[in-house]
Amino acid sequence: MTRPVLMAVLAVLAAGAPVASIARTPASAAAASADAGPVLVSPDQWRAMAEAGDRYPMFAAERQRVEREVRAAMAHGIDVPQPRDLGGGVTHERHKANYKAIAGAGALYRLTGDRAYADFARDLLLEYARLYPTLSDHPAGNSPVRGRLFWQALNDSVWLVYSAQGYDAIRETLTAEQRRTIDDNVFRRMARFLSEENAAYFDRIHNHATWATAGVGMTGYVLRDPDLVDRALNGTAHDGRAGFLRQVDELFSPDGYYAEGPYYQRYALAPFVIFARAIQQNEPERDIFGRRDGVLLKAVDGVIQSSYAGLLFPINDAMPDKGLTSEEIVTGVSIAYAQTRDPALLSITQQQGRTILTPDGLAVAQGVADGGARPFDFRSMQLRDGPNGDLGNLVFLRRGGANGQALVMKNTQQGQGHGHFDRLQWLFYDNGQAVVRDYGAARFLNVEAKGGGGYLDENDSWAMQTVAHNTLVVGEASQFGGDWMVGEEHPTTPLFFEVEEGLQISSARLEDAYDGVVLTRTLAMVEHPELAYPVVIDLFRAEGQTATAYDLPLHFNGQIISAFEARHSVLERPVLGTGSGYQHLWIDAVAPAASGTRSLTWLLGSRFYTYRFGASAPTSALLVESGANDPDFNLRREPALIQRMQGQADASFFSVLEPHGVYDGTAETVSGATSQIRDIARVRGDDAEVVVLTLVSGKTLALGVAHATSAGLAHTVTVDGQTYEWTGPYARFDR
Amino acid sequence: MTRPVLMAVLAVLAAGAPVASIARTPASAAAASADAGPVLVSPDQWRAMAEAGDRYPMFAAERQRVEREVRAAMAHGIDVPQPRDLGGGVTHERHKANYKAIAGAGALYRLTGDRAYADFARDLLLEYARLYPTLSDHPAGNSPVRGRLFWQALNDSVWLVYSAQGYDAIRETLTAEQRRTIDDNVFRRMARFLSEENAAYFDRIHNHATWATAGVGMTGYVLRDPDLVDRALNGTAHDGRAGFLRQVDELFSPDGYYAEGPYYQRYALAPFVIFARAIQQNEPERDIFGRRDGVLLKAVDGVIQSSYAGLLFPINDAMPDKGLTSEEIVTGVSIAYAQTRDPALLSITQQQGRTILTPDGLAVAQGVADGGARPFDFRSMQLRDGPNGDLGNLVFLRRGGANGQALVMKNTQQGQGHGHFDRLQWLFYDNGQAVVRDYGAARFLNVEAKGGGGYLDENDSWAMQTVAHNTLVVGEASQFGGDWMVGEEHPTTPLFFEVEEGLQISSARLEDAYDGVVLTRTLAMVEHPELAYPVVIDLFRAEGQTATAYDLPLHFNGQIISAFEARHSVLERPVLGTGSGYQHLWIDAVAPAASGTRSLTWLLGSRFYTYRFGASAPTSALLVESGANDPDFNLRREPALIQRMQGQADASFFSVLEPHGVYDGTAETVSGATSQIRDIARVRGDDAEVVVLTLVSGKTLALGVAHATSAGLAHTVTVDGQTYEWTGPYARFDR
Repeated sequence: MTRPVLMAVLAVLAAGAPVASIARTPASAAAASADAGPVLVSPDQWRAMAEAGDRYPMFAAERQRVEREVRAAMAHGIDVPQPRDLGGGVTHERHKANYKAIAGAGALYRLTGDRAYADFARDLLLEYARLYPTLSDHPAGNSPVRGRLFWQALNDSVWLVYSAQGYDAIRETLTAEQRRTIDDNVFRRMARFLSEENAAYFDRIHNHATWATAGVGMTGYVLRDPDLVDRALNGTAHDGRAGFLRQVDELFSPDGYYAEGPYYQRYALAPFVIFARAIQQNEPERDIFGRRDGVLLKAVDGVIQSSYAGLLFPINDAMPDKGLTSEEIVTGVSIAYAQTRDPALLSITQQQGRTILTPDGLAVAQGVADGGARPFDFRSMQLRDGPNGDLGNLVFLRRGGANGQALVMKNTQQGQGHGHFDRLQWLFYDNGQAVVRDYGAARFLNVEAKGGGGYLDENDSWAMQTVAHNTLVVGEASQFGGDWMVGEEHPTTPLFFEVEEGLQISSARLEDAYDGVVLTRTLAMVEHPELAYPVVIDLFRAEGQTATAYDLPLHFNGQIISAFEARHSVLERPVLGTGSGYQHLWIDAVAPAASGTRSLTWLLGSRFYTYRFGASAPTSALLVESGANDPDFNLRREPALIQRMQGQADASFFSVLEPHGVYDGTAETVSGATSQIRDIARVRGDDAEVVVLTLVSGKTLALGVAHATSAGLAHTVTVDGQTYEWTGPYARFDR
Repeated sequence: MTRPVLMAVLAVLAAGAPVASIARTPASAAAASADAGPVLVSPDQWRAMAEAGDRYPMFAAERQRVEREVRAAMAHGIDVPQPRDLGGGVTHERHKANYKAIAGAGALYRLTGDRAYADFARDLLLEYARLYPTLSDHPAGNSPVRGRLFWQALNDSVWLVYSAQGYDAIRETLTAEQRRTIDDNVFRRMARFLSEENAAYFDRIHNHATWATAGVGMTGYVLRDPDLVDRALNGTAHDGRAGFLRQVDELFSPDGYYAEGPYYQRYALAPFVIFARAIQQNEPERDIFGRRDGVLLKAVDGVIQSSYAGLLFPINDAMPDKGLTSEEIVTGVSIAYAQTRDPALLSITQQQGRTILTPDGLAVAQGVADGGARPFDFRSMQLRDGPNGDLGNLVFLRRGGANGQALVMKNTQQGQGHGHFDRLQWLFYDNGQAVVRDYGAARFLNVEAKGGGGYLDENDSWAMQTVAHNTLVVGEASQFGGDWMVGEEHPTTPLFFEVEEGLQISSARLEDAYDGVVLTRTLAMVEHPELAYPVVIDLFRAEGQTATAYDLPLHFNGQIISAFEARHSVLERPVLGTGSGYQHLWIDAVAPAASGTRSLTWLLGSRFYTYRFGASAPTSALLVESGANDPDFNLRREPALIQRMQGQADASFFSVLEPHGVYDGTAETVSGATSQIRDIARVRGDDAEVVVLTLVSGKTLALGVAHATSAGLAHTVTVDGQTYEWTGPYARFDR
């Protein structure tokens, strides 16, 4: 075949045929071919958006928002500074603004036909083509994997994911010379930087690497370079032991739970769904959204389920102000809707109040405009952790809809480097707010004055310590000796999870967090006709071999209304301890060790919460507040209750949390300010324990929990003439 | 005239003639006459509401809300318990619910014609007729003036104001016997209890007495008892030296400012406007709404102007969660709208989201439904204090509309018993939140577990002390030795108040708060093209006779981002002092006395705030937090900065507060996180001071303030070759 003929054949192949089929032709040759039309979004899809977009308010509004953003960038002019700053700094924010401008301008060119947008994106990219080849590692920060435009390679990858989309939209408008300049000096070089010069990083099974594979893979589609695409999908060795597909298989559990937890799931979602959509567009035969029984779509549902009042549950050092309105979830919801047409997703879009300028965004905007939205079903569920779903679970017990009661029990892995040492911890939400809460990360994202916007020292010394969470601390030390790599080797064992009418319950066991101590926690959300709202019953059992110290913190949120009797620090405020997070706690009050139960009532928003608690041996109770040893004011000041039992090998802590009453500061009315529970007690038999609530009416509500959880075992506990008999792991008794 | 004839004549008089005209007939005779139709709202007005109400969503919604409330009360049944509890307690809340049910049922009977409502109100009132005569003083609490149904007579008065309206609506439906029973055993007895057995209380010039006069006066109209009406209007001596009219004349300033401040103005407003409306209905010739140039209508405007983001400025120990949606202001707005038809009031109604079941409520609902609402004009203004307007002022400097910048300078009187010792204090609001704030009252209203819901000890020991506010503390003592009665004798002197383009300024002087020390504060809100938002320049000057200690607190709201260099309390947290509120402050950090300026940057919501400050002599700077010596957790924990100068007789403190930047936790973007002001300096001449801001661009913005404020005086200040010359109290210089 003569050379011209070969070229012609290649051109034909490149023009129409899916990349997979030309993957057998040499990349250089394919890249040399001239077809430059958009491949991430087809010309027809762009046309549909241009024609129909204005008919759907959300799409039109997003287009206007992007127009404002891009016009502002155009007014600012071509500004591609020498990289210098950390997150939040001027050059960091400028390069971020630039990739948004490139992507936005590309879309606007397609939607309006206005060449000015294409030319602006072109000029920015040509400027990057001048700058980028001159760059070596970024000068600032201490990232293990530095970028060139940004202090960490992660941001370079994100730049590539977004800029590739803008470039794809305008590439057709360039001269061959301009195209070659930008292809080679920007995209091919960045792809090489990420996938060759940082091959080990690129081949990791980690969300940062997913941004890298997505950027490189989309670049491959745009440049018609099947080698890049294959490297992105199957790793630098092209053998599938690394790369995007492997990441899809290993980073999500079968239920769509992402190993690093909701906050990072939100963030990681973007490259997964954006690249998956590009794969679907260019290689539909891969059925990427069907992979692993649709795990990517489960991941979108899972991250929404992992939220309350629009904010993600802040487990695994999350930023507590991060929520469903984040761009990544807006993107995820629209892409998922385009695949499933699930009308419940439209109500999330309505809550987000915006969509994106893609065919999927158009579909969502149309669905909302046509009144297709249905309420999202926030339901009780468990998300299993681990590629095979055998590494613990994240449990949600819900009642009363979106702003009703939500109990979270965290029995997942450490979340890789992002974990907290807080297995078996629980969180409780009610009436739109966090009642029992997690501190989240000690970080002011992108606020340069706060450690360059990265994790603060207090993230290690406080936020990642066990005492900063709502789970048992043994010997004043964090779980797994504070070593997350050890933690990753020892999953939590879910014992049971049941959702019945009026009773939802979850139990799990952790055996290796502390040498020779087995921790078992059972949490139940229980309803009763005499109680205004479901109450949470907690039974936390520790079986040790030698006498030790047990501390059970409760990080409650609200103003204390009435507390148990205690000695208060009035003239000076001591610090609780010297390490494992204890050094960050001021002591406000101490109740000396005693038997019997205590209670604490606080007010949050318009509702009262009464927590009644006791234990199997005398305990002291401490009221503390975070903020000690904090010379830079990096910590928020938040109160906590600590139940402290010392000198015991075995321990059982039992408690009930009761929401009640109404405080209306506007109408100046109060009702139900007193608890409807008179007392809580724990009775034990040989092989089980029973937590008994006595209501003011005299009625009792009891929850029996067996030590052994096999279904067939019968249990009997008798005390004060009351006998509790049941078969199986747990039972409820109303008398 | 034979007896039958006399009765006939009286009946005729009573039926049609206004009360004023029958006031000349003996009360007893008039009362004996039988006419029982509604007089607080005419039959025609009720008919109009019944017919048109459903056409206007807000009126219909309020009617449904009241229906739910009354139906719930009917389901609960007739429950008129023996009085026993404090605010928030069961019997307290029940008697409150009952007067709402009586008023609501009365209205619903008129709107629906359903006798069940009338019968329910009747049965409740008959039960009160049985209980009330058996009551003596309320057993609980320590109110100086106890009620019978409630722990304080105030609540009894409120009961009367609302129940009288319900009774008026249904009285016609009763038998003469039932009427006599309720007239005599409930209303006449309560009127006697308030206006005779507590005559001194009734004759006070105080909002509690206004509720009493309103209750008694409305009872007078309903019972056709002109003697009661006259006693309410002119006091128990019927001579006008006390009573409602005198209260209107003395409790409001000519600008409509209420002596006790916005929070109590909101509360006091209700009896004033409700009774005024009843007067207007029955004795229009009194032109009550025109009295004192329409002071009652100015009071409604004034209380709205005294709010930000829907919440009232919490000066004079207010509850910080009290806002425009409170029932009293809903009532005030509707009554004012009915008088003025000012469409700006409709936007407040929209914000309130509700109205009331009266002819005025109908008018408001109609105005809103007809799209008549216009934005409320929150404007820079001063509200003079005192019956003659010569007792200081409350200054609002605003920019950027409802959620823009608002500076409050408090130069008013003590606010009677409800005052704070905080003359010359300032507050600053921006971006929808309080940036420089006031603690408000130390109280959990109606939460029985918190001191019966009344003022807590910490209200005296902290909230009412000068150090709890944003003004100068001399010798670690509160203003006027903490004696409000002394404070009431010494008004603050406003020096000037000007609103110009780009510069708004207010200045005032306080001479008697501390022996031999004259305090002068000038606050300006200044705009500059290089500054994103207006900045606040503060110059606080103290002229003493002997060396003393000056502390200037700034109660800022937000998370510290970067602070001046200081020694931090890390291992234990000491308490600042032993009295005057200092005993409630924990010390977080101390910067030793030094010359030169310091700065503090904090983050609140999505915006940064940088405060730069210096003084005329070396000062130390303390970062503190409220919450020390607080064994019952009655205080909120809030941070403050204290500038401390010791050993000086004269002192000048100068500072600038600069809002800047954007923190977007959702998009994870930050911009403008660094201040645009490089430095602040103060230069002084013989008779004036100049505060000079140097911007990062090198440009300067200077504010000259003369010691003597007469308009004609010329001033010259020269420093480093820069000369500032001006005539009058102040001048701005841009260089």
